[in-house]
Amino acid sequence: MHKSPFSVSILSVGNEIVDGRVINSNAAWLAQRLREEGFVPTHVLSCRDNLQEISDALQFLVPHATCLIVTGGLGPTTDDLTRDAVAAYANLDLELDPVEQNKLAEYYRSRGRDLTESDLQQVRFPVSAKPIPNPVGTAPGFQLQLPSGSLLLSFPGVPKELKYLWDNEGQKLLLNHLSVRPTKKLATAFHCFGIPESQAGRRVSELSLPKDITVGYRPHFPVLEIRLEADVAQKLLFENAVEIVRARLHEFVFGEENNCYLPHVLHTLLQSQKKTLSVAESCTGGLLGKLITDNPGSSEYFMGGGIVYSNALKQSLLDVQEKNLSEFGAVSKEVCGEMASGARVRFQTETALSITGVAGPEGGSMDKPVGTFFIGLATRDSTVVFQYFLPVDRTNIRIYAAYCAIDVLRRHLLELPFLLKPL
Amino acid sequence: MHKSPFSVSILSVGNEIVDGRVINSNAAWLAQRLREEGFVPTHVLSCRDNLQEISDALQFLVPHATCLIVTGGLGPTTDDLTRDAVAAYANLDLELDPVEQNKLAEYYRSRGRDLTESDLQQVRFPVSAKPIPNPVGTAPGFQLQLPSGSLLLSFPGVPKELKYLWDNEGQKLLLNHLSVRPTKKLATAFHCFGIPESQAGRRVSELSLPKDITVGYRPHFPVLEIRLEADVAQKLLFENAVEIVRARLHEFVFGEENNCYLPHVLHTLLQSQKKTLSVAESCTGGLLGKLITDNPGSSEYFMGGGIVYSNALKQSLLDVQEKNLSEFGAVSKEVCGEMASGARVRFQTETALSITGVAGPEGGSMDKPVGTFFIGLATRDSTVVFQYFLPVDRTNIRIYAAYCAIDVLRRHLLELPFLLKPL
Repeated sequence: MHKSPFSVSILSVGNEIVDGRVINSNAAWLAQRLREEGFVPTHVLSCRDNLQEISDALQFLVPHATCLIVTGGLGPTTDDLTRDAVAAYANLDLELDPVEQNKLAEYYRSRGRDLTESDLQQVRFPVSAKPIPNPVGTAPGFQLQLPSGSLLLSFPGVPKELKYLWDNEGQKLLLNHLSVRPTKKLATAFHCFGIPESQAGRRVSELSLPKDITVGYRPHFPVLEIRLEADVAQKLLFENAVEIVRARLHEFVFGEENNCYLPHVLHTLLQSQKKTLSVAESCTGGLLGKLITDNPGSSEYFMGGGIVYSNALKQSLLDVQEKNLSEFGAVSKEVCGEMASGARVRFQTETALSITGVAGPEGGSMDKPVGTFFIGLATRDSTVVFQYFLPVDRTNIRIYAAYCAIDVLRRHLLELPFLLKPL
Repeated sequence: MHKSPFSVSILSVGNEIVDGRVINSNAAWLAQRLREEGFVPTHVLSCRDNLQEISDALQFLVPHATCLIVTGGLGPTTDDLTRDAVAAYANLDLELDPVEQNKLAEYYRSRGRDLTESDLQQVRFPVSAKPIPNPVGTAPGFQLQLPSGSLLLSFPGVPKELKYLWDNEGQKLLLNHLSVRPTKKLATAFHCFGIPESQAGRRVSELSLPKDITVGYRPHFPVLEIRLEADVAQKLLFENAVEIVRARLHEFVFGEENNCYLPHVLHTLLQSQKKTLSVAESCTGGLLGKLITDNPGSSEYFMGGGIVYSNALKQSLLDVQEKNLSEFGAVSKEVCGEMASGARVRFQTETALSITGVAGPEGGSMDKPVGTFFIGLATRDSTVVFQYFLPVDRTNIRIYAAYCAIDVLRRHLLELPFLLKPL
């Protein structure tokens, strides 16, 4: 069988993946990382927690790839069978790894838990395999050189652990296994907020980029990632394309790094401009504060805020006037503005953001249908309010509203034009 | 190879699926549909748009399954190779289907487009295959009885078309192919909080359930799903097993429905007991309020609360005493208790929950390392505070803390023992 020296296959072990209770996003994540590094994913297979079936799957996949990555099946229960299946496939015994055993015992001891026989299976590996220590979970992974010359890498299926171990260990192990390096593609990702995929697509296609530049659109609600790729040989062409796309999307682009996170962009801006912030949340119920405090160190500028779900709390906590609540309603420009300025004054911050809206599914009206929300921004100089409408489901309306609030402040701090006209 | 008469495998054809540009949600959708009907998905494989690789994939999958469902690779371009690969695998020629050809010609004519030679490949099928007409797209699917007795069903990869064709045709074709009907499985899922997988596993394995009962553990941090399954024939055995597992896990089980959500369990309890709630959040920064207001209708009982990230706000918003902050620190039993009772009084609710802790990665001490947090519950009668420690990453410490707070109130409302002893 002809195969590229950079071909990699992925085997995802787990009943819940095969039968659709869990979507296999691990494999997609891994394949993308591989592609970025110049590797060539060839097969993604999921099979059940069954010794024979895992072993059959290995048999099928190994000839296709220089490296086979197995995820899942490494935990302490009886349906965690990856170690046994690899041992059976490679005709090896399992043996306890004393170093990993000590670490596991220590981990359990520090949590006041006893180490049982079933826990111990997590540190039993095929003879000649090397454990891959797992500082973010209990089950280590392992690497094994197969007789065919292929490398087998086994990782836990817990997404957080897989990602950590891949980025910190797996990638290095794979590169060390090869005598030649793959060539990376040139790639840039524009992370955008506030522009739909179709509109972004139109803007980019009007630029008539050369055909050696690949453009990919990946919406991860509520943000859109636009990815440009080209071969290393096309460096000049690529740099030029990046520049004109960046200019065309301008204020919608909030970052270009991998894993760029809008709340983190705001975090960096507030830190460097030394401005303090508080929030006043109605329909988002705390989500905006949660996003802001996702960032370690946010206590430097974020004082806190009010979750003012009831009208009584809007009044007592933020000095919203009763007459505005009764005349315009809780979801109104007037109340939203008072929430922002009330928060700024009460919580003594330089800036304050407010959100009030109809997240549904009930509570909509002709005037203010489900998906209507207002964002307020209060600063030393003024208070501005914007009205939005995105008729999706409750979860996504709330996420979108919290992101809109963050983006309003991002644009304000960067002196970029706002997405909408202030009311 | 032993296989169930109801076993089904899925082959997803397409470069963009293998290399992670697209997440394979088609397969998850299909597998879930199959499972609901009593079928048993055994393998999900994705391979590239490559004649030999598709053919190899068929070779591997067919022996495992009574039915093989292939999605994708049916379009008009040169990388649409499913028809050719199936023909090559089954050693059959391709022939034009005149009925489908006419429909396709009509479709193009009505849109003012010419039918090219490459468009025509969409209506060329392996000899003896039967087309599956596609009223929602251009490329029909097809069915083919393989020499092994297995049924091959091929559908377009466009999610909308696949779903339409499966629900309207595919399922019927599969049932017709079988001489017996599948029986749906008996299944119960216990959704647990506060018990690690290994501990739950030990408790359940001590029950020595009969081997006809399948037990599966699925941790979705911070909750654990424990699933019991059995054949319909084992009804009595199954019901007995469910009962003893339920009794053994008792207060850890917060629900048994599909997609059971801890914040929603609290929602139902607060609604039915007509109790109101407010929150006081420090390290979770709004996450607890967010989880509570995930539930539509939560405004019935949830008034709101304070995000008191700074000490100044803890004092001004919740009447936390300065001397407690300076003597015991913001992360302490004393401050946590005052936050809960302060919220209850200030926000005029019957119950209030508070959270304060060290979410990290900075800010830990010998005394209070990262992962330490306190939960307070104030009611009309008393205020109780609990101390937790879970040294994971910031994101998960915060999620776990918010869930712990919800679970404290759940246990209180249900008069169940608390997980920890109050301080």
